[in-house]
Amino acid sequence: MSNRIYVFDTTLRDGEQVPGCQLNIDEKVMIAQKLDELGVDVIEAGFPVSSPGDFRSVEAVSQVVKNATVCGLTRAVEKDIEIAAAALKSAVKPRIHTGIGSSDIHIKHKFNSNRDDILARGVKAVKYAKRFVEDVEFYAEDAGRADIEFLARLTEAVIDAGATVVNLPDTTGYLLPTVMHDRVSYLMNNVPNVDKAILSMHNHNDLGMATANTIAGVQAGARQVEVTINGIGERAGNTSLEEVAMTLKVHKELDSYTNIKSELLYPLSQLVSKTMRMPVQPNKAIIGRNAFAHSSGIHQDGFLKHAENYEIMTPQEVGVDKSDIVLTARSGRHALKHRLQLLGYELNKEEIDLTYIRFLDLADKIKEVNDGHLVTLMQEMKVETA
Amino acid sequence: MSNRIYVFDTTLRDGEQVPGCQLNIDEKVMIAQKLDELGVDVIEAGFPVSSPGDFRSVEAVSQVVKNATVCGLTRAVEKDIEIAAAALKSAVKPRIHTGIGSSDIHIKHKFNSNRDDILARGVKAVKYAKRFVEDVEFYAEDAGRADIEFLARLTEAVIDAGATVVNLPDTTGYLLPTVMHDRVSYLMNNVPNVDKAILSMHNHNDLGMATANTIAGVQAGARQVEVTINGIGERAGNTSLEEVAMTLKVHKELDSYTNIKSELLYPLSQLVSKTMRMPVQPNKAIIGRNAFAHSSGIHQDGFLKHAENYEIMTPQEVGVDKSDIVLTARSGRHALKHRLQLLGYELNKEEIDLTYIRFLDLADKIKEVNDGHLVTLMQEMKVETA
Repeated sequence: MSNRIYVFDTTLRDGEQVPGCQLNIDEKVMIAQKLDELGVDVIEAGFPVSSPGDFRSVEAVSQVVKNATVCGLTRAVEKDIEIAAAALKSAVKPRIHTGIGSSDIHIKHKFNSNRDDILARGVKAVKYAKRFVEDVEFYAEDAGRADIEFLARLTEAVIDAGATVVNLPDTTGYLLPTVMHDRVSYLMNNVPNVDKAILSMHNHNDLGMATANTIAGVQAGARQVEVTINGIGERAGNTSLEEVAMTLKVHKELDSYTNIKSELLYPLSQLVSKTMRMPVQPNKAIIGRNAFAHSSGIHQDGFLKHAENYEIMTPQEVGVDKSDIVLTARSGRHALKHRLQLLGYELNKEEIDLTYIRFLDLADKIKEVNDGHLVTLMQEMKVETA
Repeated sequence: MSNRIYVFDTTLRDGEQVPGCQLNIDEKVMIAQKLDELGVDVIEAGFPVSSPGDFRSVEAVSQVVKNATVCGLTRAVEKDIEIAAAALKSAVKPRIHTGIGSSDIHIKHKFNSNRDDILARGVKAVKYAKRFVEDVEFYAEDAGRADIEFLARLTEAVIDAGATVVNLPDTTGYLLPTVMHDRVSYLMNNVPNVDKAILSMHNHNDLGMATANTIAGVQAGARQVEVTINGIGERAGNTSLEEVAMTLKVHKELDSYTNIKSELLYPLSQLVSKTMRMPVQPNKAIIGRNAFAHSSGIHQDGFLKHAENYEIMTPQEVGVDKSDIVLTARSGRHALKHRLQLLGYELNKEEIDLTYIRFLDLADKIKEVNDGHLVTLMQEMKVETA
């Protein structure tokens, strides 16, 4: 029996709080609808108490999303919870996400408090949130560095208080996958009421291991993954939705599945990158412009002999409209113009002439010019898509 | 007793073969010297038989590198090995890196051969390379998908033939860290002469787990890591040098260390990105522009109370010259000009006036403007550093 893994997208909350990534309400609504189409299970739409704009965004997203749960973040503070509940009023499936720091370093230096007090505040917040909605997720901030026995005690207490999901964030992106696996296993084995709730992974990527940590958590029994499109988020970002979704899809032996429609990943990645003004590097896994480019002589040769030699998934699976056309120095103006049109660039005759000169120069140097090169060339020439 | 982990950098070979990343000889020599300063143990400088340019690059790098081993790639073909040996003639510490496909899918579809023949060709190539240099590394291409018993047999045979290092590439970026750990452990326990050589990790990032796989291999006994600056390379790229180096540095419990001078990571990352025309996304771990940016209200508050709340390493450790100065809408022209100067932008009065208008506009929107925003603003205004 395969395990259903719930995808909790926080592009619009943990992603959107990155400097320069701010979206207006219309943009948030548009992306929320695309996330709903993509098949995510939960959309975290904002942190309603943080600003009137965030409140209105959560409200607007709640009004349009038809399938996914819509979630609002709060601190373990009554006013936050009341305001989140108000923002979520129209949601078909509302969820309040409340919580508090759980590591000693957060308890002491951020809250100037102690473990027992923190536990009591967490329980109180969950109970208060339950007055407004049935579905309450609790986050144990900095769970990655929390004392594991205390974390188990806290998890048990908030589940008793009614939490449907307990989120265990690796807030500083510090853990190794082996340690993550051990910690989640500990909770699965030592929290008596753990079967009454779902454990959730929320990993940051400071050491480049967010995806591996998330998969390690799933291997140990976590059933929700908190992710963002393109891995955007604080500092080095959150876990990439596309990496986790494709890992679970490709690795059947994990015996786990999501409802993500993977062929929508690439277009949504592009939309988020453009709307949030956050470029995706060409060598980004799954959705980078080079992710499916086979460039070296050895690899091209092997690839042409048998695609599976170098490919563990197809570009089509993630929505990349892959064409075999590669332009060379022998390609004519017409072929270049046609290819650029397919990429969305409409150039007049004069522009094509100018581009063709630079294209020939490039093709002389690198022999085979693919779509990625053409997009770079257009960027260098400051040409926008039509 | 702590384990020395050898860092094998392949930025100039596996990185450089990406379309658009090609470097000329001067650029390769410059980067090789910086890699040598950084403290890498091995510099893979090219694939000498592949082109006269690659031959000359390996030759030129061999002439200037003083500390690191210089390595040239070959297929398991005599002519390749002869040419690599010639290119490496001046190297203080030359290494030939030869090998052949080891998975059944490569053996059958790429070589139209069988396991015994492949093993014989591998052994022959290692023995031939030993005629020219003492230090011979063998790569078992697509080791990630190879039959593990055959891989053990192949490893034993090439070590018997004189290989000093056996490289086990996850060519398609497919493995999970748990599986990587099991496979390397199997080889450590089942290859009788494994103590006569070093096992090496060479992982690709197609599912976003290259760093985690590399660390898993180290945990199982691998002692060399093959990496690139910024994780550049085929498709989704190779393992990031900076992620592996900092993971080993931060996680003392791994009881492993490299000779990398981490404070040189950021400047070298910038140099490689610029020279290879491969942008680094802002949320890239360790060396992305946002990697140390604390943006959200909650995080900023926690961070100001106690930096360790949100930071597992300091920006200074990786060479980011971090300043606490954040500009706001109340900052004057003078503060803006000073900050831009520190970032390398020399603007005249007219340019400053123009920039200041756009800066105020931005500060109104996002409240706090950091160095990352200023660099983006300069890029939008097409201003280059002086």
